[in-house]
Amino acid sequence: MAQSTDGGKAPDSARRSERSRRAIYDAALTMVGEVGYARTTIEGIAARAGVGKQTIYRWWPSKGAVLLEAFLDLGERAAREAGAEEAAYEIPDTGDLEADLKTVLRATVDELNNPAYDLPYRALAAEGIIDPALGGEFTRRLLEPQLRLYVERLRAARSAGAGGAGALRDGLDLRVALELLVGPLAHRWLLRTLPLTHDYADAVVEYALYGMTARS
Amino acid sequence: MAQSTDGGKAPDSARRSERSRRAIYDAALTMVGEVGYARTTIEGIAARAGVGKQTIYRWWPSKGAVLLEAFLDLGERAAREAGAEEAAYEIPDTGDLEADLKTVLRATVDELNNPAYDLPYRALAAEGIIDPALGGEFTRRLLEPQLRLYVERLRAARSAGAGGAGALRDGLDLRVALELLVGPLAHRWLLRTLPLTHDYADAVVEYALYGMTARS
Repeated sequence: MAQSTDGGKAPDSARRSERSRRAIYDAALTMVGEVGYARTTIEGIAARAGVGKQTIYRWWPSKGAVLLEAFLDLGERAAREAGAEEAAYEIPDTGDLEADLKTVLRATVDELNNPAYDLPYRALAAEGIIDPALGGEFTRRLLEPQLRLYVERLRAARSAGAGGAGALRDGLDLRVALELLVGPLAHRWLLRTLPLTHDYADAVVEYALYGMTARS
Repeated sequence: MAQSTDGGKAPDSARRSERSRRAIYDAALTMVGEVGYARTTIEGIAARAGVGKQTIYRWWPSKGAVLLEAFLDLGERAAREAGAEEAAYEIPDTGDLEADLKTVLRATVDELNNPAYDLPYRALAAEGIIDPALGGEFTRRLLEPQLRLYVERLRAARSAGAGGAGALRDGLDLRVALELLVGPLAHRWLLRTLPLTHDYADAVVEYALYGMTARS
């Protein structure tokens, strides 16, 4: 807002900056998907984005920093496409835990089947698997905030006293429980065992949730 | 056995061959763990193993073929170290499904925490994630035979009419069910979220199995 007070020039400048930023994110994600994390360079990103590499260095200190923000932005765009009101990954709470988890795991399946997400995320995952520092940082900053949302949704269901298929069991470790939801999808995606489908997402939710809920 | 009939020379030759083969497997796995799949070469393996590269080409047509056999051999050695009578990955059947699954997932945790297994498998997984042909082949030849053993063990439990925590539910898709066991471990291992421990393996078995068994 501060820019709009100084006479018309700054808003144009802000728009140009926003265009450049978007072009840089797109170029970074395309490049990492095409040539992998290790061979992605600031020079390559700048050339694809049609900006000078000093523009990139002015905003980010390193390749890793550009890519981290590009991936964060990609996650926000995916959330918006999935219909989230906030530009952030979120899990709905309609009061029906099973339905809500199916909604979010189906959206995850769609994202992983979309080359615009699949290719850069694969490149990032592959590099993180062999580089502990990179893998640790991206997990902490990209993945863990998403996983915490599952813990929060499960905790809300426990407080409400009922999931779609019964109340969550007492003493359940929610951090472990959420991994029974997301682990199987990651396994199929990363290890290429069988297709990722909505039916699969539904079955994972049903089986995992059945294991989390109390017996009548 | 055929070699032992031709007078003393062939057994030595067979022993030399076996020594060379073991040296080549070890060199291949060490190299892939150190420099990654893409930068592993037949020349590099030969130099580390102390054999001529023609020795390798006489037995295997390609780098991928050597590495596939080296990984198969690594899996067999891991199974032997875990006390399997057969030199193959196996799941015990003591009649107590929960105890048997904990035994095998704890052994998997130990393997993934052992650098001799972790480093080469990570290098292989990283390459498979970005190379669909390689990932598909290694999954089909290395991973799927292991996954089938889970399906068989679950099927045996269903036939026997009782797992450790009740009978397996009717209509359960065993191929999906096993992924609730192995997916969470792969997720922690590949994405470096939290430590892989025996307690975690036990919790995954308990939560997954609770979801697979009938309510009383």
